[in-house]
Amino acid sequence: MSQDSVKNIMSYETVALDDENSALVIIDQTKLPGKVEILHLTEQKDIWNAIYLLQVRGAPAIGVAAAFGVYLAAKRIEATSYDSFYAQFLAAKEYLDSSRPTAVNLSWALRRMERVVLENANKSIPEIKELLHQESVAIKDEDVWMCRQIGEYGLSLIKDGDGILTHCNAGQLATSKYGTALAPIHLGRERGMNFKVFTDETRPLLQGARLSAFELFADGVDTTVICDNMASQVMKNGWVQAVFVGCDRVAANGDACNKIGTSGVAILAKYYGIPFYVCGPTSTIDMSVARGEDIPIEQRPAHEVTEMWYQQRMAPEGVNVYNPAFDFADHELITAIITEYGIARPPFTESLKEIFRKKQEAQKK
Amino acid sequence: MSQDSVKNIMSYETVALDDENSALVIIDQTKLPGKVEILHLTEQKDIWNAIYLLQVRGAPAIGVAAAFGVYLAAKRIEATSYDSFYAQFLAAKEYLDSSRPTAVNLSWALRRMERVVLENANKSIPEIKELLHQESVAIKDEDVWMCRQIGEYGLSLIKDGDGILTHCNAGQLATSKYGTALAPIHLGRERGMNFKVFTDETRPLLQGARLSAFELFADGVDTTVICDNMASQVMKNGWVQAVFVGCDRVAANGDACNKIGTSGVAILAKYYGIPFYVCGPTSTIDMSVARGEDIPIEQRPAHEVTEMWYQQRMAPEGVNVYNPAFDFADHELITAIITEYGIARPPFTESLKEIFRKKQEAQKK
Repeated sequence: MSQDSVKNIMSYETVALDDENSALVIIDQTKLPGKVEILHLTEQKDIWNAIYLLQVRGAPAIGVAAAFGVYLAAKRIEATSYDSFYAQFLAAKEYLDSSRPTAVNLSWALRRMERVVLENANKSIPEIKELLHQESVAIKDEDVWMCRQIGEYGLSLIKDGDGILTHCNAGQLATSKYGTALAPIHLGRERGMNFKVFTDETRPLLQGARLSAFELFADGVDTTVICDNMASQVMKNGWVQAVFVGCDRVAANGDACNKIGTSGVAILAKYYGIPFYVCGPTSTIDMSVARGEDIPIEQRPAHEVTEMWYQQRMAPEGVNVYNPAFDFADHELITAIITEYGIARPPFTESLKEIFRKKQEAQKK
Repeated sequence: MSQDSVKNIMSYETVALDDENSALVIIDQTKLPGKVEILHLTEQKDIWNAIYLLQVRGAPAIGVAAAFGVYLAAKRIEATSYDSFYAQFLAAKEYLDSSRPTAVNLSWALRRMERVVLENANKSIPEIKELLHQESVAIKDEDVWMCRQIGEYGLSLIKDGDGILTHCNAGQLATSKYGTALAPIHLGRERGMNFKVFTDETRPLLQGARLSAFELFADGVDTTVICDNMASQVMKNGWVQAVFVGCDRVAANGDACNKIGTSGVAILAKYYGIPFYVCGPTSTIDMSVARGEDIPIEQRPAHEVTEMWYQQRMAPEGVNVYNPAFDFADHELITAIITEYGIARPPFTESLKEIFRKKQEAQKK
């Protein structure tokens, strides 16, 4: 695949509604970079599976997909009474909410959708359905705005020519546009800046090699794929001026839960004296959770580890496998958390509250 | 493959001469664990390739294979004068020496073989050939003894039931018997002890998932395969009481060069307060090299990273790849270096010299 055809592919949206508002449209990310397959999903089971199987993934994109998904479910509800409509809506919401446990954006987006139903009990059911449509589109539009803001703040922390290391994919493919961890890179590219980006391949599902490398290469970024265990050597070589990662849920103390391996990268960055930045919208910060230890960590199937991308078995039959999907970087390892309302620095227990104060003020205006 | 059939396979020797002393016999380790293929190699080109392609790998096993290889080359030399014999021997030696740059055992074993030729210039060529045979067998026998000694010393540092993390394969498949890093585990098993071993899969070539898991499982060890980036979480869980790794070359200051990712594991162990042990025979310690930075690091082909075990391409065409085969754990991260002549502790500049003094004394007896 040449860089031009890759570029063309990146003009697709990561997550969208079709023109008739009757299907969720996503790029099947499990097929990238080998094959570009666009999925049009109408059934709740298929949308649930798309999230569970990582056909759509990345905390912000999951939130948008779930919002669209529950809107599509609501649209089909044939109830005539509000109570019956709400009961069926709630069942659909809870079903989608069960697809993945760690990313808080999923339940955050679904709760926002539910609030629309609850706050408009006096309206007709067709009106509520239209308001749900508007809310889901708003969640997506806000996601683009938030990513752009995160990009601006992130860009203020690096300079043209810097080497950046990233883990997993917290890019355009994980959001509606720009990404979170990769937003500074994409935004910098729009302004003619150049970075040298190292992407951890990110075992077991290789989101770094398959997705981050794909979208960075499409954007003309100097991109180097490394195995996860090479990050230490790349840092030792002096090639990395900053680490940017996304997050699936941040606790009130700043502990940042993200793709498995993130805590290791944070420890390496600390050892080599490299700033470690966690990027995510405030919807990813869960002030109801005190510490990383309290965030539920999804355990995934053994075959993801023992078989190379569902192909040949690479570990003997019968051995145990440990396959947590996430870990968390202890807050003491994090230089800053970059949100759409600014940059939070330690102590995070204070600075995250300040971020939410800024958010409330902005929303009052 | 059941555990019994795996056990049976492990009764094969990792590296041996055939009964007629005319072929190098190895298990093709690139095919494990899916397929057990025994190779009988007679041509120098095939022996060179077997080392380069990692069909035989592990610093001590490479040394033994090279000793057998250069003996097989010498056996075929038809020269009648010593000078002509030595010239052809030297060419064969230098050819094998060029197969991989990092493991010092390769050139160490070849130098030992050369010394036999140099010190017996007054003997007949058939006599020299026989002495070369004896020396290659001695190198292998010593390897078994050294691994057993390393196992004894290593075992003194852990207790029954401990959780052990290892990276790559420094086991029976990397040596003539027992292994280095895995010697304490195998020796402990002989004595009815049980350990819970976590093996980093060790990208890109998966020696941990394919080889360490294979031989540990064959030995009835409770073995859990993890992706390299999960080691931090496993340590955080409190499941690891010690890390054991092998080494390909140790510098005089204790910097220990080993499979890529070793430095990262060492940094994690330090962060979590877990002892980090480097295991290797004194033939792996290169007192002529002052520091890790002076050890040549082999760079390997990009496709090892971009393609999953030579199968489907998993990173977009055109991206850069960085694929160093080794890195080194800084001596300040190492708790102890375990050799066949005892346990060296910091400061290594002193303790490694002491190890060599003990070795000299033992050899005088």
